[in-house]
Amino acid sequence: MAINKLIDLDQYSIPELMEILQIARIIKRKPEYYQDSCHGRVMATLFYEPSTRTQMSFQTAMLRLGGKIIGFDNPNNSSVSKGESLKDTIRVVSNYADIIALRHPLEGSARAASMFASCPLINAGDGGHLHPTQTLTDLFTLSETKGTLEHLTVGLCGDLLNGRTVHSLIKTLCRFRGNRFVLISTEELTVPRYIKEIMDQAGCAYTQCGSLTEAIGDIDVLYMTRIQRERFANQEEYERQKGVFILDAEKLKRAKYGLKILHPLPRVDEIAVEVDDDPRAVYFDQTEYGMYARMALILTMLDGSEKRFDARPESNTTRPCTNPRCITQTEAYLPRLAHKDRRYSVCEYCEHEYEK
Amino acid sequence: MAINKLIDLDQYSIPELMEILQIARIIKRKPEYYQDSCHGRVMATLFYEPSTRTQMSFQTAMLRLGGKIIGFDNPNNSSVSKGESLKDTIRVVSNYADIIALRHPLEGSARAASMFASCPLINAGDGGHLHPTQTLTDLFTLSETKGTLEHLTVGLCGDLLNGRTVHSLIKTLCRFRGNRFVLISTEELTVPRYIKEIMDQAGCAYTQCGSLTEAIGDIDVLYMTRIQRERFANQEEYERQKGVFILDAEKLKRAKYGLKILHPLPRVDEIAVEVDDDPRAVYFDQTEYGMYARMALILTMLDGSEKRFDARPESNTTRPCTNPRCITQTEAYLPRLAHKDRRYSVCEYCEHEYEK
Amino acid sequence: MAINKLIDLDQYSIPELMEILQIARIIKRKPEYYQDSCHGRVMATLFYEPSTRTQMSFQTAMLRLGGKIIGFDNPNNSSVSKGESLKDTIRVVSNYADIIALRHPLEGSARAASMFASCPLINAGDGGHLHPTQTLTDLFTLSETKGTLEHLTVGLCGDLLNGRTVHSLIKTLCRFRGNRFVLISTEELTVPRYIKEIMDQAGCAYTQCGSLTEAIGDIDVLYMTRIQRERFANQEEYERQKGVFILDAEKLKRAKYGLKILHPLPRVDEIAVEVDDDPRAVYFDQTEYGMYARMALILTMLDGSEKRFDARPESNTTRPCTNPRCITQTEAYLPRLAHKDRRYSVCEYCEHEYEK
Repeated sequence: MAINKLIDLDQYSIPELMEILQIARIIKRKPEYYQDSCHGRVMATLFYEPSTRTQMSFQTAMLRLGGKIIGFDNPNNSSVSKGESLKDTIRVVSNYADIIALRHPLEGSARAASMFASCPLINAGDGGHLHPTQTLTDLFTLSETKGTLEHLTVGLCGDLLNGRTVHSLIKTLCRFRGNRFVLISTEELTVPRYIKEIMDQAGCAYTQCGSLTEAIGDIDVLYMTRIQRERFANQEEYERQKGVFILDAEKLKRAKYGLKILHPLPRVDEIAVEVDDDPRAVYFDQTEYGMYARMALILTMLDGSEKRFDARPESNTTRPCTNPRCITQTEAYLPRLAHKDRRYSVCEYCEHEYEK
Repeated sequence: MAINKLIDLDQYSIPELMEILQIARIIKRKPEYYQDSCHGRVMATLFYEPSTRTQMSFQTAMLRLGGKIIGFDNPNNSSVSKGESLKDTIRVVSNYADIIALRHPLEGSARAASMFASCPLINAGDGGHLHPTQTLTDLFTLSETKGTLEHLTVGLCGDLLNGRTVHSLIKTLCRFRGNRFVLISTEELTVPRYIKEIMDQAGCAYTQCGSLTEAIGDIDVLYMTRIQRERFANQEEYERQKGVFILDAEKLKRAKYGLKILHPLPRVDEIAVEVDDDPRAVYFDQTEYGMYARMALILTMLDGSEKRFDARPESNTTRPCTNPRCITQTEAYLPRLAHKDRRYSVCEYCEHEYEK
Repeated sequence: MAINKLIDLDQYSIPELMEILQIARIIKRKPEYYQDSCHGRVMATLFYEPSTRTQMSFQTAMLRLGGKIIGFDNPNNSSVSKGESLKDTIRVVSNYADIIALRHPLEGSARAASMFASCPLINAGDGGHLHPTQTLTDLFTLSETKGTLEHLTVGLCGDLLNGRTVHSLIKTLCRFRGNRFVLISTEELTVPRYIKEIMDQAGCAYTQCGSLTEAIGDIDVLYMTRIQRERFANQEEYERQKGVFILDAEKLKRAKYGLKILHPLPRVDEIAVEVDDDPRAVYFDQTEYGMYARMALILTMLDGSEKRFDARPESNTTRPCTNPRCITQTEAYLPRLAHKDRRYSVCEYCEHEYEK
């Protein structure tokens, strides 16, 4: 497999994805066979914003493959992230490490970094944009607990408008056959238009539903996410609505025996603690699946890798991206890259649409 | 040995303790024999408050056994410690790690965490409550430098009221034969009543003494601790008293040739720097002994361990613990656990006594 | 090689330096031969001020030798650096680690620490004083890219007054035959008098030049450094001068084909981004050379090392050093050490000159 920089999971074809999941499965069965697979290799976890869970998952994955870890975890501690361009840091760390996991608060930062890394690089979250290893985790969890990634009725509950993990999971499941979606949220917090277009184009049916109680009986998978209080119109609306999207033992009584409950964690109160011991709750196991998925990914990316730079594209537009959270806003040396949509320019870093 | 969660050192019987010390002794003699003993194993050091010394000691112990390390060291850096319950963090990290060392500012947190860890867990300090590996360190230091844990006259100097390491050491030495204690402190800062009861019940003699100079000639071991200025009634009292409890070359002249001076470190000024080069000063060596003791403990706990949850107890009381520093104050999902003493309820997390 | 504590690179003779560079070269050719050379060994990186680049370089070096890492990276996170003397921390960490890399904001701290370390210790930067592994990095980069350390015309550009890496490089290159220097800076920011004396004594020719454009055609090596805005007399002067010392594609047209451009990094804007892809730019490669140089150094220092304290000198003066940034200002237990120069006392910690 030739992918050297993983920005978005859709870089992988379905057969490639299935191969990674198959490797994850084999590692999970016999992890001790793999405990020295990356002996002598070094991963840098460059976390420009703290995300201890994701960082620990990557670190554990690398360590359990016999590799080593360098990196930083907090911009405030790190002299690297101050007074040095992303380019320079990536150039330098490429010289130290065999593979980089990058977390950055700005959208498009993974794409930007990929231009300057001589070693494989994994996007471990670029702002609100993409987080492909979370989706890989979700896929592996589904694959292991449901036994298939096809013909599933998947309920997604909570804030479906702002949740990048939800969007990415839907996009990916649309690439498999026969999946249906039940979108459980308030009207204001349903998925964005472009996600509906993806489902329509893929021929995946979906229904919208304002009540978890109503929806829960029909679904094979329940993907829970947090609704942040500040997403509601006002405090009153929040109080009126919040209970509707909380999973508790009472609602769970209506669910199928074979339901699997996922959550990207951390949870706040959207799943009652009493649900934790129900065998249908797999959200804690999910973190372990995520470790195996990341191990498989690292192994795949390091296999046969050699130090090389990808060809760096030339600017293809003169208009800068207008997204204030785009990496191009702070890193002036980046080539300006956008492709033209029907109506808009689409930034190739952050995928923000703006006027042509 | 079956202990999977080490909250308090008294979980071990004396023969079990002696076995751990024996393993520590063997490791100390030939550390290279053990340098791959934990190959492929991962320890998580979860430090909810910074304690660099303790963390480095655990990390070095695991690394010198050939294991690997993940974790965090500061609540302010870590997204884990924000917005996630202790339970959830422990459940997740149990999936990554083979063993957890937990440091937490709240009393009873180790007991609480032990309910949700599927892997072995070591209490690396839960607030002012317990710190069993410090006591194990002290025992191994005594055992190595005095050659015995019996029939010792042990002087303890400084703040004996608030020092958890002092209480824990006395409790443990009372389980061995023939030890005597000399309590060297101001009257206000002597050991609490329950420690005196323990010594009485064990038949261990003790004397109280207001002067290090007077006491030092009679003792085999001097366990020094810090007296914090704010423990004194007022500044005047502090100035009058502080010199009395400082160990210097002058006072040391009266001591036995075979005296051993211990200190849990860090010291401030309670031991003069001139004492450092005296062969009776073993407080720096003590840190190395602590590393070997922790290596033996980790090895013992990982040996034959498998992922399992301990049976979780049901609430056995309706009255919440009243200790404001108890872990039950912040983690609402914990079962309420207390046993009845003669007069009080005793919280099973923090051992705080409160009205029945 | 007997050096157990590396404070300053001039502790090594030229043949010893050449041997370290030779080891670095061999490691660079076949790093996999060395990937277990330090198996079972532990390095402590004690960084009393954050310097993520230097710390990552040391860590990667040790990890790529098969060793392990403990340490801390920030005084604010670390309980070690609070309330404990440097001596005590070094004594304790010596018990955990096989080698220490120390970074400290105070001048002379490496010398001070070396008195109390029972294991090898490397100065990873002591305030504005010394940073020998940066110079070793520079030497190895020159050696690899120019093929020699002799008969080079070396341009040094930027703030030559305050740059310790510049001073250290000049001092070391003066020990090799036939090197010449071109000092490219404003008059105010040229090298200090004592550096000129060293060049004179070594018989190394040097010229001073106020323009990078004029100088660039004649030199074999260009060592760029940052000029901080606050070094200029005023804002007007800064605006007038800054362009003169910025390297860009235009100025580079005048340079020799075989020029090599070095920079200790991080750069701010003193090298235009357009220069990065020029084959003469070796400042990113330099970081990789630095890793190999540090690997060679660690290997050399650990080879045959055993735990020992160096003999500790007695105070040889009664007058304290007057440098406010000297380690003796905060660590009162240090012996007072100074040797007499022609006119001054020279502090043996920070090399500050003060009245006899």
